Amino acid sequence: MVKGPAGAPEVYDVRASAARGPRGVYVAVSGNTSAGKSTLVERVRRELTERGTQAVGISERLFHHRYLPLMFSRSDTYAFPVQLSFMLERHLVLLRNLELGRVVVMERSHLDDGLFVAEHIETGSVQPDQAAAYRELSAVLHRRVPAPDVLVLMNPRPEVSLARLAAAEAAGERPREFPDEDAKRRWVHRWHELYVDLHEEFRKRCAADPAFAGVRLLEADPQAPPGSAAPQVVAAVRDVTRQGRP
Amino acid sequence: MVKGPAGAPEVYDVRASAARGPRGVYVAVSGNTSAGKSTLVERVRRELTERGTQAVGISERLFHHRYLPLMFSRSDTYAFPVQLSFMLERHLVLLRNLELGRVVVMERSHLDDGLFVAEHIETGSVQPDQAAAYRELSAVLHRRVPAPDVLVLMNPRPEVSLARLAAAEAAGERPREFPDEDAKRRWVHRWHELYVDLHEEFRKRCAADPAFAGVRLLEADPQAPPGSAAPQVVAAVRDVTRQGRP
Repeated sequence: MVKGPAGAPEVYDVRASAARGPRGVYVAVSGNTSAGKSTLVERVRRELTERGTQAVGISERLFHHRYLPLMFSRSDTYAFPVQLSFMLERHLVLLRNLELGRVVVMERSHLDDGLFVAEHIETGSVQPDQAAAYRELSAVLHRRVPAPDVLVLMNPRPEVSLARLAAAEAAGERPREFPDEDAKRRWVHRWHELYVDLHEEFRKRCAADPAFAGVRLLEADPQAPPGSAAPQVVAAVRDVTRQGRP
Repeated sequence: MVKGPAGAPEVYDVRASAARGPRGVYVAVSGNTSAGKSTLVERVRRELTERGTQAVGISERLFHHRYLPLMFSRSDTYAFPVQLSFMLERHLVLLRNLELGRVVVMERSHLDDGLFVAEHIETGSVQPDQAAAYRELSAVLHRRVPAPDVLVLMNPRPEVSLARLAAAEAAGERPREFPDEDAKRRWVHRWHELYVDLHEEFRKRCAADPAFAGVRLLEADPQAPPGSAAPQVVAAVRDVTRQGRP
């Protein structure tokens, strides 16, 4: 069983009944690796819990398949199924914790996952038949979860991500997932570019897409110390709770 | 980490390199719940290991998602994603262990999974858009794994399955997965019928489908003590190793 911090609700709880009230609040912290997402997730979860709100903090490590290292070292074979596993785990955890009426503070969102697959398609690690099946499945899954109520964007310069990543690896706070330093540098730079585009798309959808009408968009300063956006995020969650969801 | 019995290879090994020789041998034990599949899987694995063969035994419990109980109690929401998770986990474990050149002795096969989804489609727990996405995805995944080299069919009468299931639950050897006794009885009877049809399809494909040309089909006596078919299965594996795969 995955236990959260003491007193926190259990993410994989199968005994509780679905909440009678409205579904929970979906908070997503979107951005490149080592932007400070997990620190922010954990701080927001803690502040909400201290105010008596039922909140779970979801680090993306929860969705890491045990074969994740093979996705980097043997992409041709493992990129597709490992990416499916990310999408599916996130979907299940979201479905369940939202129906339990909790605030779900999540590293990345279900709308981020496709970015990583797009990159594998471009490099040829994911084949056209796999890409088509992924797209169809993600459309079917996404139809059943809401857009984030609060969407935080963080995308520091690649050099900042790389320096933080190196420090976390050296301190043993992160596993060394990349096959080598050169591959790591390439991935981090590429993901940064892709996040620039994805975040631009999110901004446009907030302005024009009815499915995004209720989204509170927050831009976090990517160079600020990780976690410093927590008060704004907590305020946005309280705003959602007061105003209700669309 | 999931560790096998002492000395057994690790199913989730990410460090070993793919075998230089031929891929491993795929042994599937197909049939209804409580047919004695896990006992047979474990006995075959042990006998092969004693003969110096690299073998892994895969109980289907390895593929059970932590939300599995919700698939029974809240099928409308959870049947689809939990079934996807079964299919995907099996796919990953098969891909990896076959490329490592091992004999994979598995409870059920990738060709069994669709049976459970078909039932959820019929009862309306899986919607048409989900069914279509599942079918497309399974076709894409299945294209990348071989048909079983050895396929063992076991499908005892539902009363036999139910009696064995009750005994295993009472002894604490199996979790109580079903919401109640009535639901359990219905599922076990229905699965029995579906397995009659699936096994008939397997027999026909062995006779006519080129993709099944190399399949060694074994019919295990469903009333015999669990595990008693082990010597025949081991002999079939040795036959595959001697003759090679198509």
